[in-house]
Amino acid sequence: MTAGIVDTSITGMTGRVRRRVDELLADFLDARRPPVGDPDVAEGYRLLREFVVEGGKRIRPLLCYWGWRGAGGETPHEDRAVTTGAALELYHAGLLIHDDVMDGSELRRGRPTIHRGLARAPRWPEAETFGRSAAILLGVLAQAWADELLADATVGDVRGRTARELFNRMRTEVVTGQYLDILAHTRADADVEQALTVIRYKTARYTVERPLQIGAALAGAPPALLEAYSRFGLPLGEAFQLRDDVLGVFGDPAVTGKPVLDDLREGKRTVLMAHAYARARGPERDLLRTWHGDPGLDERRAAELRQVIVDTGALDEVEELIALRAGQAIEALRDQTIAPEAARALAVLTERLTRRVR
Amino acid sequence: MTAGIVDTSITGMTGRVRRRVDELLADFLDARRPPVGDPDVAEGYRLLREFVVEGGKRIRPLLCYWGWRGAGGETPHEDRAVTTGAALELYHAGLLIHDDVMDGSELRRGRPTIHRGLARAPRWPEAETFGRSAAILLGVLAQAWADELLADATVGDVRGRTARELFNRMRTEVVTGQYLDILAHTRADADVEQALTVIRYKTARYTVERPLQIGAALAGAPPALLEAYSRFGLPLGEAFQLRDDVLGVFGDPAVTGKPVLDDLREGKRTVLMAHAYARARGPERDLLRTWHGDPGLDERRAAELRQVIVDTGALDEVEELIALRAGQAIEALRDQTIAPEAARALAVLTERLTRRVR
Repeated sequence: MTAGIVDTSITGMTGRVRRRVDELLADFLDARRPPVGDPDVAEGYRLLREFVVEGGKRIRPLLCYWGWRGAGGETPHEDRAVTTGAALELYHAGLLIHDDVMDGSELRRGRPTIHRGLARAPRWPEAETFGRSAAILLGVLAQAWADELLADATVGDVRGRTARELFNRMRTEVVTGQYLDILAHTRADADVEQALTVIRYKTARYTVERPLQIGAALAGAPPALLEAYSRFGLPLGEAFQLRDDVLGVFGDPAVTGKPVLDDLREGKRTVLMAHAYARARGPERDLLRTWHGDPGLDERRAAELRQVIVDTGALDEVEELIALRAGQAIEALRDQTIAPEAARALAVLTERLTRRVR
Repeated sequence: MTAGIVDTSITGMTGRVRRRVDELLADFLDARRPPVGDPDVAEGYRLLREFVVEGGKRIRPLLCYWGWRGAGGETPHEDRAVTTGAALELYHAGLLIHDDVMDGSELRRGRPTIHRGLARAPRWPEAETFGRSAAILLGVLAQAWADELLADATVGDVRGRTARELFNRMRTEVVTGQYLDILAHTRADADVEQALTVIRYKTARYTVERPLQIGAALAGAPPALLEAYSRFGLPLGEAFQLRDDVLGVFGDPAVTGKPVLDDLREGKRTVLMAHAYARARGPERDLLRTWHGDPGLDERRAAELRQVIVDTGALDEVEELIALRAGQAIEALRDQTIAPEAARALAVLTERLTRRVR
């Protein structure tokens, strides 16, 4: 078998898993009819379906799938891993809908966020209040449904039970990570250590480590493999979030699907910004304090902020952190407990999730 | 056995169930330690625990318990019914926390609501934003934990599976009912039919019918009993909500735990108000339209609104609806499939949940 053929096969499997997750989510959501016959309620359900089915990179389902295969999961039992992955995706949709309410974001995946899209009552501020409340409810609904989907896939044996326990732990971790994140906004200047703790819980465990482990648990993985996935997943997850933070300031909106000024206007307390704060002195520091987090920030000021981030060396520092973590992740894949084909697929994913795209 | 002794025994059992639910919730929440060591995160967890443990009438756990006993549930297997009831209560806490965010309520159970209590960042509006976001997260956490508690109690057999399916249906129903409720606020004048649909899903099914049925399912109830509980639970649930709506306008804040002007200031689209709108003419109608839903409403104007509600006959109409439904509920309890002791306990509860307390 040549490297080329192996890669094709991994890409093929990845594409197939993604399509199956999409189909499964579409079927599941089509079957959810509102219990009351009201056109505006039906519209809310439709918007939720569209948000889930038509967007998203399916990172968590893919990691769940490869985590499962890496633990020796075999094709005839694939449904379970795919359904569990779909449940992770549905849960994530609910979380994003709430995240956008909390951040007051206008766009997600190149479209209006749910709370903005629904802010269509005749008058303002009623429209805004309605949009926000409706988004809270639709997010809650997505999470409840995710739970139903997961229960179907994990019922009946010890493997399923372990997967469910990891899912439960993941929910508590991510919500707590989000809590720490919003706390950071109420505190003085961004702090590097705190920002790193936030991304560990909010992203590294949630997006990478737990999905891998949940998939692995479904294949009956031994503790040693769950630990190997932690050693791989945590640095990869951190690198992925650090890359996302860089893209949030320097990325191309056509690729990221969100306005490039959002993160700066929100005053997002990323590791990148924490490094900039820690290094900036005098007028550079004043510039950060004045404009980072100002909702009225324009492109000219944003360019100045970017210059500060570059000039202080914060960007180089974060690029180094990303490279270091991506290297640690790749290193962890040498673990003999991970099935070779899955290790190759995870290496491909590592590259895709952490590479520079500017 | 005299009636007096029967009543004492029912009261005794009710008190015992309530205490066991309280203990179970306290133990469950004490065991939830935040995965990150941050004092403000710990404070959020503590607030959530306090909200769950120190407040609430435990209506749903009691209905779950009596639903279970009415289906022949017996004491040695009581744990399951009590744990499931506790899960319903924890779910409800999450729902209330979100409800208060959506309504912008200041007080609940005589204390600041979660989002108000947490609005303590150094500056405004950051404090308000933080409080709201933190409450969204704590509500989500409570619901996720409720799900864990429920899964523990319902795993392993067909009875548990049926209970879980009813719980799932209940979650979708209540969230959809809430969605319809917030939609009503964006529409012209309150509408009686729509208000009745909202209370059917948001309260009657959620608070009474489903908890009874979930308990019954755990005791292996036949379909005929689940239907009997619907015939009892739907009118009782509607009567309970109608009573709550009356108390929201005419009640004593010392008893209800919330400021008596809240419902009027929020412009809550209750059946009571819908009847007032439908009947008011000329200056009375203008008064309703001008002041119902005005956040600046004072006690003098509130008194005028109350007068309109009385003078139009809306209050009498709603009192009649309550009496009619309470009667239907009591009538439904004659069903021979409900165990007699439980039927008596449910009759006591019916009285307690629907009686006039002004």
